[in-house]
Amino acid sequence: MRLLLINPNTMPEMTALVVRAIQPHLPPETMLVPVTGRFGAQYIASRSAAAIAAHAALDAFAEHGADCDGVYLACFGDPGLLALKELARVPVIGMAEASSRLAARQAERFSIVTGGERWGPMLREFLGSLGLAGRLAAVETVAPTGADIARDPDGSVTLLAEACNRTVARDGAGAVILGGAGLAGLAARVQPHVSVPVICSAEAGVTMLLETLREPPAKPQSGDFALPAPVGSTGLSDSLSRLLANP
Amino acid sequence: MRLLLINPNTMPEMTALVVRAIQPHLPPETMLVPVTGRFGAQYIASRSAAAIAAHAALDAFAEHGADCDGVYLACFGDPGLLALKELARVPVIGMAEASSRLAARQAERFSIVTGGERWGPMLREFLGSLGLAGRLAAVETVAPTGADIARDPDGSVTLLAEACNRTVARDGAGAVILGGAGLAGLAARVQPHVSVPVICSAEAGVTMLLETLREPPAKPQSGDFALPAPVGSTGLSDSLSRLLANP
Amino acid sequence: MRLLLINPNTMPEMTALVVRAIQPHLPPETMLVPVTGRFGAQYIASRSAAAIAAHAALDAFAEHGADCDGVYLACFGDPGLLALKELARVPVIGMAEASSRLAARQAERFSIVTGGERWGPMLREFLGSLGLAGRLAAVETVAPTGADIARDPDGSVTLLAEACNRTVARDGAGAVILGGAGLAGLAARVQPHVSVPVICSAEAGVTMLLETLREPPAKPQSGDFALPAPVGSTGLSDSLSRLLANP
Amino acid sequence: MRLLLINPNTMPEMTALVVRAIQPHLPPETMLVPVTGRFGAQYIASRSAAAIAAHAALDAFAEHGADCDGVYLACFGDPGLLALKELARVPVIGMAEASSRLAARQAERFSIVTGGERWGPMLREFLGSLGLAGRLAAVETVAPTGADIARDPDGSVTLLAEACNRTVARDGAGAVILGGAGLAGLAARVQPHVSVPVICSAEAGVTMLLETLREPPAKPQSGDFALPAPVGSTGLSDSLSRLLANP
Amino acid sequence: MRLLLINPNTMPEMTALVVRAIQPHLPPETMLVPVTGRFGAQYIASRSAAAIAAHAALDAFAEHGADCDGVYLACFGDPGLLALKELARVPVIGMAEASSRLAARQAERFSIVTGGERWGPMLREFLGSLGLAGRLAAVETVAPTGADIARDPDGSVTLLAEACNRTVARDGAGAVILGGAGLAGLAARVQPHVSVPVICSAEAGVTMLLETLREPPAKPQSGDFALPAPVGSTGLSDSLSRLLANP
Amino acid sequence: MRLLLINPNTMPEMTALVVRAIQPHLPPETMLVPVTGRFGAQYIASRSAAAIAAHAALDAFAEHGADCDGVYLACFGDPGLLALKELARVPVIGMAEASSRLAARQAERFSIVTGGERWGPMLREFLGSLGLAGRLAAVETVAPTGADIARDPDGSVTLLAEACNRTVARDGAGAVILGGAGLAGLAARVQPHVSVPVICSAEAGVTMLLETLREPPAKPQSGDFALPAPVGSTGLSDSLSRLLANP
Repeated sequence: MRLLLINPNTMPEMTALVVRAIQPHLPPETMLVPVTGRFGAQYIASRSAAAIAAHAALDAFAEHGADCDGVYLACFGDPGLLALKELARVPVIGMAEASSRLAARQAERFSIVTGGERWGPMLREFLGSLGLAGRLAAVETVAPTGADIARDPDGSVTLLAEACNRTVARDGAGAVILGGAGLAGLAARVQPHVSVPVICSAEAGVTMLLETLREPPAKPQSGDFALPAPVGSTGLSDSLSRLLANP
Repeated sequence: MRLLLINPNTMPEMTALVVRAIQPHLPPETMLVPVTGRFGAQYIASRSAAAIAAHAALDAFAEHGADCDGVYLACFGDPGLLALKELARVPVIGMAEASSRLAARQAERFSIVTGGERWGPMLREFLGSLGLAGRLAAVETVAPTGADIARDPDGSVTLLAEACNRTVARDGAGAVILGGAGLAGLAARVQPHVSVPVICSAEAGVTMLLETLREPPAKPQSGDFALPAPVGSTGLSDSLSRLLANP
Repeated sequence: MRLLLINPNTMPEMTALVVRAIQPHLPPETMLVPVTGRFGAQYIASRSAAAIAAHAALDAFAEHGADCDGVYLACFGDPGLLALKELARVPVIGMAEASSRLAARQAERFSIVTGGERWGPMLREFLGSLGLAGRLAAVETVAPTGADIARDPDGSVTLLAEACNRTVARDGAGAVILGGAGLAGLAARVQPHVSVPVICSAEAGVTMLLETLREPPAKPQSGDFALPAPVGSTGLSDSLSRLLANP
Repeated sequence: MRLLLINPNTMPEMTALVVRAIQPHLPPETMLVPVTGRFGAQYIASRSAAAIAAHAALDAFAEHGADCDGVYLACFGDPGLLALKELARVPVIGMAEASSRLAARQAERFSIVTGGERWGPMLREFLGSLGLAGRLAAVETVAPTGADIARDPDGSVTLLAEACNRTVARDGAGAVILGGAGLAGLAARVQPHVSVPVICSAEAGVTMLLETLREPPAKPQSGDFALPAPVGSTGLSDSLSRLLANP
Repeated sequence: MRLLLINPNTMPEMTALVVRAIQPHLPPETMLVPVTGRFGAQYIASRSAAAIAAHAALDAFAEHGADCDGVYLACFGDPGLLALKELARVPVIGMAEASSRLAARQAERFSIVTGGERWGPMLREFLGSLGLAGRLAAVETVAPTGADIARDPDGSVTLLAEACNRTVARDGAGAVILGGAGLAGLAARVQPHVSVPVICSAEAGVTMLLETLREPPAKPQSGDFALPAPVGSTGLSDSLSRLLANP
Repeated sequence: MRLLLINPNTMPEMTALVVRAIQPHLPPETMLVPVTGRFGAQYIASRSAAAIAAHAALDAFAEHGADCDGVYLACFGDPGLLALKELARVPVIGMAEASSRLAARQAERFSIVTGGERWGPMLREFLGSLGLAGRLAAVETVAPTGADIARDPDGSVTLLAEACNRTVARDGAGAVILGGAGLAGLAARVQPHVSVPVICSAEAGVTMLLETLREPPAKPQSGDFALPAPVGSTGLSDSLSRLLANP
């Protein structure tokens, strides 16, 4: 089984961080193909960077997705998620999508702890597009960006546990997501300090992808996520241009 | 791994039907413990029967759940689901829960095709309790009860495909659930006639349970689904009484 | 006029408490038939106990409801309410239902003060099933269970008034329900200390039932609350079994 | 007991029609004081007419409400309802308010059959202000205005039953309100032809008012419906001017 | 171009205040016709006063609106807005309407700072009728009435900036409206102290009206805001009576 | 005044079409700078094409937006709208945004008539991100793409009027948007055949932009649409890279 992991920002270190976090969760026979965005911002902490990253995710999929069995969009906030779901014939799962759906299973309302304060309205919007807006208790931002946190994971556990407990007490969250590649793998260390489930977005993503791949659903022939009609294009990479022309 | 399958109505034939449908999806090392409700209605097509079935599900769990690793509530509409999630230390997944969450992943809005017309308002209410009410396009009832359909699965494929296509065209559903033990295993035969994903509720349930069990979340220590405080009781089975007194 | 009062937990003391609270509100010619749950938890402070209580309420109705003109479900949170409405040919009113509808008449948004912290999510869910979720300002829990409060009503008035005033100030509640049999009759003593209407759930229930009985609506022949189709059953009391077989 | 019945349009015939419909529902000791609007449109079938009628209702209350124990706002759509609730120290109930709350008790969703097609958006707005918008299945208008129907009640029963059955079948309504003074008293004759409860708005209003008066709630000292602060005014009737200056 | 400015309360000083605030925003060729309510409360801080003001607004329009090209309803809370939109053949814009729509363009959620604490629920209701209820972060009231503030605008800037910053920090408002004629013209002085856009309701109203008048939409021939059917009336001013009889 | 018009697809003919439609609405002193997407699909009829177009819109803004006073995003569905609002110091208005806000002013609920059936779910999602989802009556698609319609505008008037009247009658729309550059300028010809306002999305966009520019709001210093923090990037155009590094 071949999984394409797309990190749609342009920091290979971040790609490597997610790979390290999810590798232990992969079955032995899995071939993971990690790809970092070919263009765009170093990390995604604004709507502008996210918009560019959506294109970069499609570009990466067109170039590397040909033989993959599934796609893992490894950037919390999931830039380009619905477009990838439309364009790919195989299952596509994002980190924010997977962890939000998992949290919504485990509690009436959940919170998200992540870095970068612009993510508050961006995530409310994203959850709205998934129909999960009503389940969000709060977005608690603990640092300017996930990148900052990635540099000092050890010192972050206390900080993160405090953020989790704050939103549990104040907002009534029944589960908390640690969102973002920068926080990948920290949930297990934060969990002992928090009384409700703490969810790692990176692990949630790979788990949901693997589950989906056990019995992958048929690609819809109509409706929201059917393949788009072919369309000509200009100025795109050869592979993306070919994919749009012949989806 | 030991899975408790609870069919909270009192028809062993229905239990057997679900077991047959999901057996092929279980890993070899799984021990499935199927239990039929000790008391209650023969099938669940009313709020009264569902209310009794919720108690029967708890009763079955108390008697047979001691060493299980997960619980599969095998009755579409999931009577007693949230109470079981509260009382069990292991993951509990219901057929309607699992298939609705799966459908909500695959489409903006989904429909449910099931037997028994009282299920329309009952399922809207159930989806409301999961926070998924806004995702439901329609409930399309095709026969008085799932039991009737269970008696003639072959003749039902055309009927079911018509019901699916009707709600796709009229209500804009992007996915359709075939809901109920009585329809278990028919989705694969209906799918070729329908342009959007057709989801088997019985298979969706077992798939989501297995996924959850790969890395089971910690039992919450607080919030909606923490263990309840101990309480004395009267007139219950010994095992349920003990469980309530010492959860 | 014969009214069946069902307390679906198993504490006769609690039944007696509600009877004392509502007796002064009954017209002289009313015969009140109080029934305590035949099985289940001593008090209802969890989803598990509530699920069992729903069955116990149906069991009590089947045994004692034959000649009654109306049914009063005397347990805040109203376990089994919609199932009873379906199965009974006469009006059924619950304490939480009645007091919530009354509060929704008197204010844009209302709060509930009750004992037992698990009731927060349980009541949000219950109000969702009535279509009133948007009207709830907050659930303020003041003690582990209503049972505790029942033991010391006098000392509770100050505590309850503080809880009411807290939610008025913080959450903007325009009315407050004192919810639960354990708080029955205390509203009149709390009211002088609170600037918005304080509603006794026990009194609200009996008032709404009496009103409904003045000109009882026809039993619906179709729709949500029509009688269910007959169904066979196993392991239930004779009377409940007969009722399901011949509703 | 003295009840003020305010018909805020200017047709005394319509006032008389409502009086006839509700008289049989009043206890013997009740003194009903019917008042017709002193100014405004002959019937209310537009937002403009409704806005003027709200003032007329306050004017009537100021002039005649001094010693009343309760106020019945006898015009479906309830112009001025919330303002009257604010200004009166006694309970105020409107026909649309009462019948909508009653319908919301009896079914998951209800429809309104009434005359005058402008009432569709006006009633959706009104129900929104009561927090009941989500419960409305449809507004079915059957004639230009309620006044037209008032002239030929006999011939209207078939027409109304058809309208009820149409919205039951098409919109899934579980109860239907016959809304408006013009339809007062017809529900009993329509009911035999319809499978779900048919509610007379005029009777629902008086029933809810009488219920409320059995144990009238304390006038709120704060919040939405407390008395307003005194305010000077110009050009109003003496009694309304005095009431605003000294509520 | 002739604009009718209706201040539906009865204080000419307030009319003059709005005129001063908006005059600089009018094109040179505009003739502004300011009208103060002929009857009603001196200022609008209750539902009762608002209900009367709605009639006064229609009365003013009927008397003075004949040749106007647009109508500016210059009272925050917009009493009579939808009725005026129905009855007028020319565009009608209210201060609360315009500023709320403008704020909803500039931020995910906005707050309103205004005087008079009863405006909290009244504005929530008003925004509900516009379909904007979900966009409101909070209503922050800073003084008993806008009239009080009008008397001391200079001392109010600090107070208002504090109120704005409070709701930005606590409620996450992305824009703040200074609502009410009493606050007209203060936004520019408050803005430098606040990090999100501060909107003057008086200026927003005139700006939206002028924009609408550049290419005024056709008066709808059907639907919510078409002219109402003619209706006879009693006790109204001659001009309003004629307008209702011949809209 | 200098306005940047960004058509984020790659068809200059479509850019020219919009320019022709809006030119008559521009004040004489306006300099319009039309830009066509440098890369991407020829027209936008899928989520994939829209995701790429969002990047292309940012790219165009970075290259040509330096001295502009406002930005007009001339592609219905508004790819990149919120990102542009974040990144630009001047007002940004999109065609779908402007026409939807205008329609929401003119009617309780509105419909959109546009080409390309994938736009149904895409527009529901877009309106959700603006908080307008509840105002949408229906999306009526009349042709595969707006491009097809652009080729034969004359023959389309009847077709479009039929689509408008269909959704007015069936869905109760009180206003209809003709959405898309391909339909620019047709509303005036369709209006005489339709009883509710018909809105041209291209004209609505330019009108709202001009209005906003009369008194442009201060760029927010905090909240949703403040400038993003600087971020390094890779593989982007020089101008976009510089803009992200120094917004």
